[in-house]
Amino acid sequence: MPGEFEYIDWIRSQQGELPGNVLVGPGDDCAVVRTTDRLQLITTDMLMDGVDFRVGEVEPRRIGRKAMAVNLSDIAAMAGVPKSAVVSVALPAGQRSLAEELYLGMAEMAARFEVAIVGGDTNSWAGPLVINVTLLGEATARGPVTRSGAEPGDWLFITGPLGNSIAGHHLDFTPRVREALLLHDLAPLKAMIDISDGLTADLQHILDESRCGAVLDAIPLRDGATLAGALGDGEDFELLFAVAASDGEVVSRHATRIGGCVESGLWLMNDGRREELKPRGWSHSV
Amino acid sequence: MPGEFEYIDWIRSQQGELPGNVLVGPGDDCAVVRTTDRLQLITTDMLMDGVDFRVGEVEPRRIGRKAMAVNLSDIAAMAGVPKSAVVSVALPAGQRSLAEELYLGMAEMAARFEVAIVGGDTNSWAGPLVINVTLLGEATARGPVTRSGAEPGDWLFITGPLGNSIAGHHLDFTPRVREALLLHDLAPLKAMIDISDGLTADLQHILDESRCGAVLDAIPLRDGATLAGALGDGEDFELLFAVAASDGEVVSRHATRIGGCVESGLWLMNDGRREELKPRGWSHSV
Repeated sequence: MPGEFEYIDWIRSQQGELPGNVLVGPGDDCAVVRTTDRLQLITTDMLMDGVDFRVGEVEPRRIGRKAMAVNLSDIAAMAGVPKSAVVSVALPAGQRSLAEELYLGMAEMAARFEVAIVGGDTNSWAGPLVINVTLLGEATARGPVTRSGAEPGDWLFITGPLGNSIAGHHLDFTPRVREALLLHDLAPLKAMIDISDGLTADLQHILDESRCGAVLDAIPLRDGATLAGALGDGEDFELLFAVAASDGEVVSRHATRIGGCVESGLWLMNDGRREELKPRGWSHSV
Repeated sequence: MPGEFEYIDWIRSQQGELPGNVLVGPGDDCAVVRTTDRLQLITTDMLMDGVDFRVGEVEPRRIGRKAMAVNLSDIAAMAGVPKSAVVSVALPAGQRSLAEELYLGMAEMAARFEVAIVGGDTNSWAGPLVINVTLLGEATARGPVTRSGAEPGDWLFITGPLGNSIAGHHLDFTPRVREALLLHDLAPLKAMIDISDGLTADLQHILDESRCGAVLDAIPLRDGATLAGALGDGEDFELLFAVAASDGEVVSRHATRIGGCVESGLWLMNDGRREELKPRGWSHSV
């Protein structure tokens, strides 16, 4: 039966030439890369069968794409340039074709954003599929965009419609890496997050870190979505960000304004009246 | 019931001040760190309940220590300086104390080597415990030590006795980070690996990458170990390395010579005669 090393050899055979900044790729104790003097961004995400996807209901290649894409979305949320990834898997024993398709999905998504897969850890076990990707990136000269820079008076934007992600978008979304870089070049983004837990929950993270409040008015809905779904469902993977009011008009040409920052609270405009919103969304219980 | 965010808040409350090169730690979309002009090392390892440890038979703090230590061992195997880690976990639902003890074990091992835990991903599910650590480090000015630099005539060394790791050493070992840095300063290490799959299997990795062979003579045994165990068991986490013969004497004062490199093959001296060895050791089937 093919072993771990044969699978790693297969992965190495699939890889084209690694970029010049990668001195040692998969197959040694560590990958070795040359960094630049830009600030480095690090993010990691673990996806599990039965929680983030269901093996048997979804093609493994889409699972692989999602595992890479959720990390790309985190780099996008800091307006960073993704560079290198390492991948760990716990594979259900004996499923070589699943293993290969997963890799091909990850490699395809990585290639779309010029990310090099520089190493990883391959395991098999009797348990369900688990994939972990750690992605390294670089901030631009304008610096990373954290969650903590929003202020009352700022305008709030999103990069696309929300809700009903479960119908397929959560597997097939395009991480907003390029949009973030373009927008951050156009106007300094003051605070940003990717919508993974749900609009109100993720907005609340920005508000907590920035110590301000927000009023939402218009929320664009994805096909089949309800307003409640757009506010609370997770895994939209659009970017939610704040810019100074003075930059609001120019940014409005490239993203959708959904509201603005205020002193405190979280509010939804309904027929011209403010209603208080409770943050909701996905939280894993621990 | 306490949720993911409460656990993350608890982790943040446990952390002392982060080192000056960490601009953004846990709690944003990415960690942000300032790198140096040294080459960067990246390694990642996933540990699973039932494969790498057994929850219920082992204190969770030791599991946490091991999850960090196996990654430190990979940085040691390149003679690198470990710097920053990100940690992902899939926790069995509802086991908050397990989650806390795991973190404390990881944090304790990280602190011993001045590693900052800069971010992570916390999940819970109905499945078994899975932990993934990605560790970033830096090469020294002498450069990283890969597996590919050994040549016939080199001397082969290990940093400690082998075998019977299953009795407890595999959970409680000290990664050979400091030893590797001292040795690499003393004499240029030509090729190195940490013994995780077993001596012969890991030596074979060096021989494959270096395109040479080796003869083993004396193998120091850990208490309770047999020669077969020392040759084939995994998880010793000692370093196996090659130096030029001209550096052999000085290195012999700080590590144990176990043999030397030859043109081809893998051999064990037995009563003055060479016997061919088959590489064996742990390989996950995929």
